[in-house]
Amino acid sequence: MTTFADITGRLEKLAIEVPSWAYGNSGTRFKVFGSPGTPRTVKEKIADAAAVHRFTGLAPSVALHIPWDLVDDYAALATYAGDHGVRLGTVNSNTFQDDDYKLGSLTNADPAVRRKAVQHNLDCIEVMNATGSRDLKIWLADGTNYPGQADIRTRQDWLAEGLAEIYAQLSDDQRLVLEYKFFEPAFYHTDVPDWGTSYVHCAALGDRAVVCLDTGHHAPGTNIEFIVAQLVRLGKLGSFDFNSRFYADDDLIVGAADPFQLFRIMVEVIRGGAYDGPTPAALMLDQCHNIEKKIPGQLRSVLNVQEMVARALLLDVDALAQAQQAGDVLAANQIYMDAFYTDVRRDLAGFREERGLPADPMAAYLASGYQEQIEADRVGGTQAGWN
Amino acid sequence: MTTFADITGRLEKLAIEVPSWAYGNSGTRFKVFGSPGTPRTVKEKIADAAAVHRFTGLAPSVALHIPWDLVDDYAALATYAGDHGVRLGTVNSNTFQDDDYKLGSLTNADPAVRRKAVQHNLDCIEVMNATGSRDLKIWLADGTNYPGQADIRTRQDWLAEGLAEIYAQLSDDQRLVLEYKFFEPAFYHTDVPDWGTSYVHCAALGDRAVVCLDTGHHAPGTNIEFIVAQLVRLGKLGSFDFNSRFYADDDLIVGAADPFQLFRIMVEVIRGGAYDGPTPAALMLDQCHNIEKKIPGQLRSVLNVQEMVARALLLDVDALAQAQQAGDVLAANQIYMDAFYTDVRRDLAGFREERGLPADPMAAYLASGYQEQIEADRVGGTQAGWN
Amino acid sequence: MTTFADITGRLEKLAIEVPSWAYGNSGTRFKVFGSPGTPRTVKEKIADAAAVHRFTGLAPSVALHIPWDLVDDYAALATYAGDHGVRLGTVNSNTFQDDDYKLGSLTNADPAVRRKAVQHNLDCIEVMNATGSRDLKIWLADGTNYPGQADIRTRQDWLAEGLAEIYAQLSDDQRLVLEYKFFEPAFYHTDVPDWGTSYVHCAALGDRAVVCLDTGHHAPGTNIEFIVAQLVRLGKLGSFDFNSRFYADDDLIVGAADPFQLFRIMVEVIRGGAYDGPTPAALMLDQCHNIEKKIPGQLRSVLNVQEMVARALLLDVDALAQAQQAGDVLAANQIYMDAFYTDVRRDLAGFREERGLPADPMAAYLASGYQEQIEADRVGGTQAGWN
Amino acid sequence: MTTFADITGRLEKLAIEVPSWAYGNSGTRFKVFGSPGTPRTVKEKIADAAAVHRFTGLAPSVALHIPWDLVDDYAALATYAGDHGVRLGTVNSNTFQDDDYKLGSLTNADPAVRRKAVQHNLDCIEVMNATGSRDLKIWLADGTNYPGQADIRTRQDWLAEGLAEIYAQLSDDQRLVLEYKFFEPAFYHTDVPDWGTSYVHCAALGDRAVVCLDTGHHAPGTNIEFIVAQLVRLGKLGSFDFNSRFYADDDLIVGAADPFQLFRIMVEVIRGGAYDGPTPAALMLDQCHNIEKKIPGQLRSVLNVQEMVARALLLDVDALAQAQQAGDVLAANQIYMDAFYTDVRRDLAGFREERGLPADPMAAYLASGYQEQIEADRVGGTQAGWN
Repeated sequence: MTTFADITGRLEKLAIEVPSWAYGNSGTRFKVFGSPGTPRTVKEKIADAAAVHRFTGLAPSVALHIPWDLVDDYAALATYAGDHGVRLGTVNSNTFQDDDYKLGSLTNADPAVRRKAVQHNLDCIEVMNATGSRDLKIWLADGTNYPGQADIRTRQDWLAEGLAEIYAQLSDDQRLVLEYKFFEPAFYHTDVPDWGTSYVHCAALGDRAVVCLDTGHHAPGTNIEFIVAQLVRLGKLGSFDFNSRFYADDDLIVGAADPFQLFRIMVEVIRGGAYDGPTPAALMLDQCHNIEKKIPGQLRSVLNVQEMVARALLLDVDALAQAQQAGDVLAANQIYMDAFYTDVRRDLAGFREERGLPADPMAAYLASGYQEQIEADRVGGTQAGWN
Repeated sequence: MTTFADITGRLEKLAIEVPSWAYGNSGTRFKVFGSPGTPRTVKEKIADAAAVHRFTGLAPSVALHIPWDLVDDYAALATYAGDHGVRLGTVNSNTFQDDDYKLGSLTNADPAVRRKAVQHNLDCIEVMNATGSRDLKIWLADGTNYPGQADIRTRQDWLAEGLAEIYAQLSDDQRLVLEYKFFEPAFYHTDVPDWGTSYVHCAALGDRAVVCLDTGHHAPGTNIEFIVAQLVRLGKLGSFDFNSRFYADDDLIVGAADPFQLFRIMVEVIRGGAYDGPTPAALMLDQCHNIEKKIPGQLRSVLNVQEMVARALLLDVDALAQAQQAGDVLAANQIYMDAFYTDVRRDLAGFREERGLPADPMAAYLASGYQEQIEADRVGGTQAGWN
Repeated sequence: MTTFADITGRLEKLAIEVPSWAYGNSGTRFKVFGSPGTPRTVKEKIADAAAVHRFTGLAPSVALHIPWDLVDDYAALATYAGDHGVRLGTVNSNTFQDDDYKLGSLTNADPAVRRKAVQHNLDCIEVMNATGSRDLKIWLADGTNYPGQADIRTRQDWLAEGLAEIYAQLSDDQRLVLEYKFFEPAFYHTDVPDWGTSYVHCAALGDRAVVCLDTGHHAPGTNIEFIVAQLVRLGKLGSFDFNSRFYADDDLIVGAADPFQLFRIMVEVIRGGAYDGPTPAALMLDQCHNIEKKIPGQLRSVLNVQEMVARALLLDVDALAQAQQAGDVLAANQIYMDAFYTDVRRDLAGFREERGLPADPMAAYLASGYQEQIEADRVGGTQAGWN
Repeated sequence: MTTFADITGRLEKLAIEVPSWAYGNSGTRFKVFGSPGTPRTVKEKIADAAAVHRFTGLAPSVALHIPWDLVDDYAALATYAGDHGVRLGTVNSNTFQDDDYKLGSLTNADPAVRRKAVQHNLDCIEVMNATGSRDLKIWLADGTNYPGQADIRTRQDWLAEGLAEIYAQLSDDQRLVLEYKFFEPAFYHTDVPDWGTSYVHCAALGDRAVVCLDTGHHAPGTNIEFIVAQLVRLGKLGSFDFNSRFYADDDLIVGAADPFQLFRIMVEVIRGGAYDGPTPAALMLDQCHNIEKKIPGQLRSVLNVQEMVARALLLDVDALAQAQQAGDVLAANQIYMDAFYTDVRRDLAGFREERGLPADPMAAYLASGYQEQIEADRVGGTQAGWN
């Protein structure tokens, strides 16, 4: 049987990238609620992300979103981040908030718009070169709302062409990470709707093109851990966008809606060697704290991942393999559930304290005065958000 | 067999209420695209709605949304509408865009917020008294995002109390119409998620409380025509919010996603007497023209409803009843499909011409110069939208 | 804070009814796999059910299904059950396996079939009178496969008539429990598809007509605990059919697919007083052990319910109410999750031992030799199943 | 504009393979209803399939299912079919109805079972060699019901190995067609759940391994025509299993649940060249006539496909391309819908008569006496079904 002491070494390797945009305001199409203390600048976002890392030791890097995080001097921004104990991570391109992209970006019927979208991604690679980021993440809002509106077949070819042009500009240690999404903001068809589509494009591009799996971007009932297992097997699981959902792309705190699903996903990540094995996948958050406070929301998120990774590492894989081989359905399931049901909270508190971290990061944050400070300081200016 | 000539009398009775907000900009949480010619005032919205009626003869009334359509003088607004050939219809209250409503309105744990939400609805009744509107429509965005966030049971009681207070202020010829919605903007629980919940509240209130069925507000796979049949049977189908969807509350043009579903719905409306029978339901649109032009989008919508009503009226109900009674599954289905597959477009063109309307309202609108006119005129000011 | 010691008194009240048919073979439309030791008679089913109770103390009664469990002498059967330490419980009628019911039972267009279906339920009441059962549970397979096949509106009226006739024959201490189901075996429409429909029929019948909520009978994404809260509020939650599902009506072991959902459901059951309060709901299993062994499958099921009831009872409702009232979204959620994440397995083992039960009922059963005994004894004859 | 006269040449090429098992009894896990006239032998099934072809001219070949259609002499069976005007088509293997396959076939943890499953498929290739069939279709029921029950990653590797062994035995003009399915009969994970998984296995095998798309085997809301377009683009769309569904794998008559979806699918098939172009996909039915008569059910099915192919061929692709290129969302959609709404029934009647077929095949069949004849003749013996 595996004990908590057996897994601490592996647990130490956990690192979760947080997105700069999580600290700004977000909402639904009906309303974006503002909140006191919301960052007004990229630096303030990074300061908040650094706070998450300081209290948990789990979030050493921050993902950027261009143009939301446009600055003049990325080297200076990287230094600023380093001074705060974190580094700049994945660069996310954005081809969905410009009027030109109303009917698509890399898949737009207008070649000028396709060119503009390619160029934006090339610009993002320039940012990566300045920040030292490894990953360019492309999520496309492209799609249509009405049957017949566009030629979905030709759009695949345009997509392949655009991606190839972008991929060609990556350096040898950079990756293109292609995200898929079932629907929204397009409501009839999406140009990269599923892992299969993302996979075939990445396979056509080459080894440094990999798939991003956002846990909220699937059809109802989809077995996500199967996709994880398959992509890891194919060597194409590049990264996760973690969040949770009850219905659609709800972007709730990871683990909040279905903790058992998060456990099953982490079991397959570990099983396939994508946690601390030969083919590591980047673990990122991508969530919207519409009604809860942002920094506490991020704290809860990284802690949820840590708790579930601990449970998954505790799985007695030898006993499980034996029961599986014997065809003992109920015994295998029980071994699996035993790991899930193990309460790791006390052990994790000790694990943190041994590493100079607060036993209860959430309580420590709330007691630290950081929240009160930013609420007092950040008055005036424009709060950061999705626009 | 029923012919088109047999149904023209019934077809004439078709009237579809259009929403003032359909003429303003709408979008997703990712982006709201603006478009030339978008109204900047309530009057401009009504003028656009009137254009839809002028070209189709199908849209004699306009629903208002408070506070989006706040004016100082509703009697004057009603006169303005009348001068344009339409009248003011349903008043929709809005308790989801004020910061106070972040955690709920009629179901908020804070009694002061509940009171404010009640008062807003009472104010809407004042508007109705001024405009002569019959229906107060209440759609609540209330709900929660996280399990445990609120006491969903107590919220039902608060909801019942608030609705009772509002209902008590209605005059004898006014109705409270309670809409339900499966999810969004709340992602864990919604306080009025299904027809059952709306029904039990309306039943508790009294005869003038009825259910609004928005065709996009159901779980995947829900048989909507069954709900129609049931609500009509119970005397509680107050109105429709028409739109269509592939995934969630996509708010696409009615009939665009699944025309056969619209046919089945209209068959049950007619079957139960809620079209031109003793218990008429109000037919309204509630859609978002995110990427298509607004007025043409509305034209297409009312025309789609008209086409499907015509097909549904053509159903040979006697032959159908005979096949159903005989248990002949395939014959009954064939009779049903025969009505759906009947191409009514040519007959409808004639029907329109006989009534002094353009045979092809869409072509006539596009040729009329109206669109070019508003695009030229409506420059400057703030375009209308959801805020 | 609530401790395990605080809840043992309430935990003792847990009683879960097991279905006689769980011990027979079941399967999918593709294949029913047989297994050694499967009962061949009603008595053998009851003996197996009694074994589940002997090892867990959780399953004191057995539900019957007529005609699957037809015997000549129900008084003798009740005595037999009593001798084995259990009693006979709910009687389930079956109007879906006779050729006459191909196009419906209580909703069939043929009055003779409707009459037959009513009579079968009246016969079931006779069985209840003999066994002393309180509840008649009606699940209807009625529905259609093709649009137009039947008049769904009239079928509601026939349903109401049939139910009224059955209800009239109940004695004062008997109940009619009406189950709803989203789909299957009918694939276009179901005559009792949702809680709303079941509720309106029960409300029309009277106080002793209540709703049965089968946890696998909902549309994807449905918030079941909301329905629980609503039905308890309305005084109409009669009973549960517990099982779990990933997709449709998968009938897996309760708690296996989404343990957190089971927790949320039990929290609302307790919250509303339907566990040990004034309006108790009957807790039953209704599952299919297609590939796992039957008795261990039932053991796992009742143990899963027990574990989740314990967690739900541990919820610190006072702290929760305070956080909810304060609008502290994350604090409220954390209090809620703390109860779910509490590992109650060791405490439950002690709880069992104090009551003379095995600490680990599953291990005790597997070591008991019972399974080997029935596999050796029950050779020949026809194994029990769904037909 | 395209007229019916323009498309008759292309329409003549339509050929739909019917499955032998459609003529036997089928049902749900709750009940299989028998019906008079059901075939008792493979020859009787072929005779019924031939009747479908005789009345429609649309169904020239019959798919076999092994072992349901095991005979001693396939050459003789092929001759029998030929004498009835049809030929033998796809051979479907079955590795889900033997007790050994309870926990999987090609993915079973037991190597002996995997071997047996491979051998069964090799035996099917022998049948193909005798019948002259081109396609071996593999649908796997493999999967698990409980998390942890099996190692889903290793099962992929076993699957790849087994498929490779089978593929190696195909002759140069034979194909392996791998079907995917979202769920059922397994309820937690399925080993080939989506097009992506089927695609990666087929891509690994080689050019003669292609994907089978069953229209009922997807998650709710899946855009099937997108998958069609993608697979055709990748050269991997091997065949269709046509049917329709409202909820899960309902196996209703194709086009019955959502005729517009069938239209959209056929538009993409034609668009990509998979109808009469360079990469034809096989069109097959795979349905269950649970409550309707079998032969009329098959007639309705092939007629539905024919009607929708006609509509799809009528699409004015030039005008559509122009509107799409112009970004005119509503105009493009209208052109698309115009084709769908065109009533082709009268033209198709003429088309049939010109080819010596009955104008109304359903009426002609019902008047022919064939049904009465088989009901009278086929008394005694065992009716064919899924077992």
